[in-house]
Amino acid sequence: MHVRVLGSAAGGGFPQWNCGCANCADLRAGAPNLHARTQDSLAVSADGEHWFLLNASPDVRSQIEGFAALHPRERRHSPIAAVALTNGDLDHCLGLLLLRESQPLVVYATERVIQGLLDRNAVMRTLDRFHGHVRWQQLHFGREQALVDASGRALGISLLAVAVPGNPPLHLRNQPASPEDNIALFARDERGFTLAYAPSVAALGDWTARLTESSCLFFDGTFWSDDEPVGLGRDGRRARDMSHLPIGGDEGSLRALDGRVPAQRFFTHINNTNPILRVGSPEHDAVVAAGWQVAMDGMEVRR
Amino acid sequence: MHVRVLGSAAGGGFPQWNCGCANCADLRAGAPNLHARTQDSLAVSADGEHWFLLNASPDVRSQIEGFAALHPRERRHSPIAAVALTNGDLDHCLGLLLLRESQPLVVYATERVIQGLLDRNAVMRTLDRFHGHVRWQQLHFGREQALVDASGRALGISLLAVAVPGNPPLHLRNQPASPEDNIALFARDERGFTLAYAPSVAALGDWTARLTESSCLFFDGTFWSDDEPVGLGRDGRRARDMSHLPIGGDEGSLRALDGRVPAQRFFTHINNTNPILRVGSPEHDAVVAAGWQVAMDGMEVRR
Repeated sequence: MHVRVLGSAAGGGFPQWNCGCANCADLRAGAPNLHARTQDSLAVSADGEHWFLLNASPDVRSQIEGFAALHPRERRHSPIAAVALTNGDLDHCLGLLLLRESQPLVVYATERVIQGLLDRNAVMRTLDRFHGHVRWQQLHFGREQALVDASGRALGISLLAVAVPGNPPLHLRNQPASPEDNIALFARDERGFTLAYAPSVAALGDWTARLTESSCLFFDGTFWSDDEPVGLGRDGRRARDMSHLPIGGDEGSLRALDGRVPAQRFFTHINNTNPILRVGSPEHDAVVAAGWQVAMDGMEVRR
Repeated sequence: MHVRVLGSAAGGGFPQWNCGCANCADLRAGAPNLHARTQDSLAVSADGEHWFLLNASPDVRSQIEGFAALHPRERRHSPIAAVALTNGDLDHCLGLLLLRESQPLVVYATERVIQGLLDRNAVMRTLDRFHGHVRWQQLHFGREQALVDASGRALGISLLAVAVPGNPPLHLRNQPASPEDNIALFARDERGFTLAYAPSVAALGDWTARLTESSCLFFDGTFWSDDEPVGLGRDGRRARDMSHLPIGGDEGSLRALDGRVPAQRFFTHINNTNPILRVGSPEHDAVVAAGWQVAMDGMEVRR
């Protein structure tokens, strides 16, 4: 399997357009221990030729241009055969609308996420320009599914969806919550290498048992502490109010997952305020000392 | 007035993610006479401190980061006070959803474009996170309107909307066409300097009389010839089928507008297939010889 980190920041990216926090301000001023990041997405391939994306970020256009394996090989072509979504958040779905130029694509997501996109948004019709433009494929819990491209050709990777505590996206908060709102995805190649991808995690629980069996993990690294976002947004919400378990602290993911995660593990979906973004900060060093990597755009895993 | 070209490419940008045409392929290979362009948008200011955007492109995040005048000056802040839209095309509107992080904003557009966005798209609720988050301000034909920020403070620029032949966006083609679907915008400062912005023009007509009186013009440069897009899309549509008057030829805009446009004039919204993108091509040189500039990201007009 070939995994490429296309983006590793939470919604808004790093820096965020309207944020002048210490991280964003120092990054803009050229601090050498801070690195810009686009919004969270992974590109995955079994053969290096046919790719699928885990989440389609608003930055997907520049992410594609920055990775030659995703460039077209003919006059009209894309090596991107499919996209799988972990939830309906805009920072995970908006990129679909940037992949709209008449390219056949298969999109995998839960029925709930598909309906939230298609039934309620006229803009999504731009992905229905011809018969077979985008095929929407439902993910069902407990059923491993072989990924295919728009012509039905297998990509050599199977996908399993697992419910993870979370919320519907902000713009659909008027609807009741569902287990299908937010998932982790487990992508397994034919040699058994398993990539676990859980960029949005409100709470741990039984579902984390599967992480132990995975070969490589990308996990929610949005916030370091619960009170980190307070004072920046207008609503005074804490990390947990936004359905993100913080990394640090006694009940944070770093301590709670200790010994239950694969050797190759990354924090991703990192908010611009998170101190782990600053190389050499105590929080950054604590994460690295615990055997985690801080995901950065362009990182790769190959096996 | 200070005008900054944030982006100068048509929908999809240059290069376009799934396009391997000669322009896109040579650009990716590093040809020195081709230059990458993000999607069409201008930033405009009367004082250099308070800005508004003409169209909000999907590339707005990187466009803001690439122009220091648009960076925040406080912990949460943006110099961008308002956005004005020329139509409801995704390459002109999607950027609104990237400006969603709790920043008050005024958006100017025709009633038709506003309704097409708000009434039909649940995702737009993300711009309604608190009272006064985004204020939608209707543009009316024939009525010059003083631009204000969310607190009502005047930006020192007035805006006039003029109907221009065009179409509703692709995803709303099921509705009957309206003169409000597509407009040109004329931004005038207190000293009378007038910026004319018409990035999408299906046909000339009486409306072009106003161009003569303008100080500076950005005009639809999507295609050079009518048959340029044939063979790349799946639908075999020509430039005119997509509501874009080509630049070249006997009936093209270059010849038709000759002598009727201000000295400072640019072609913008340039499709990735357009030969004027290639510096030194006969088409590029014909445009320059006629006194036009080929808009490029980062260009500025100050007066």
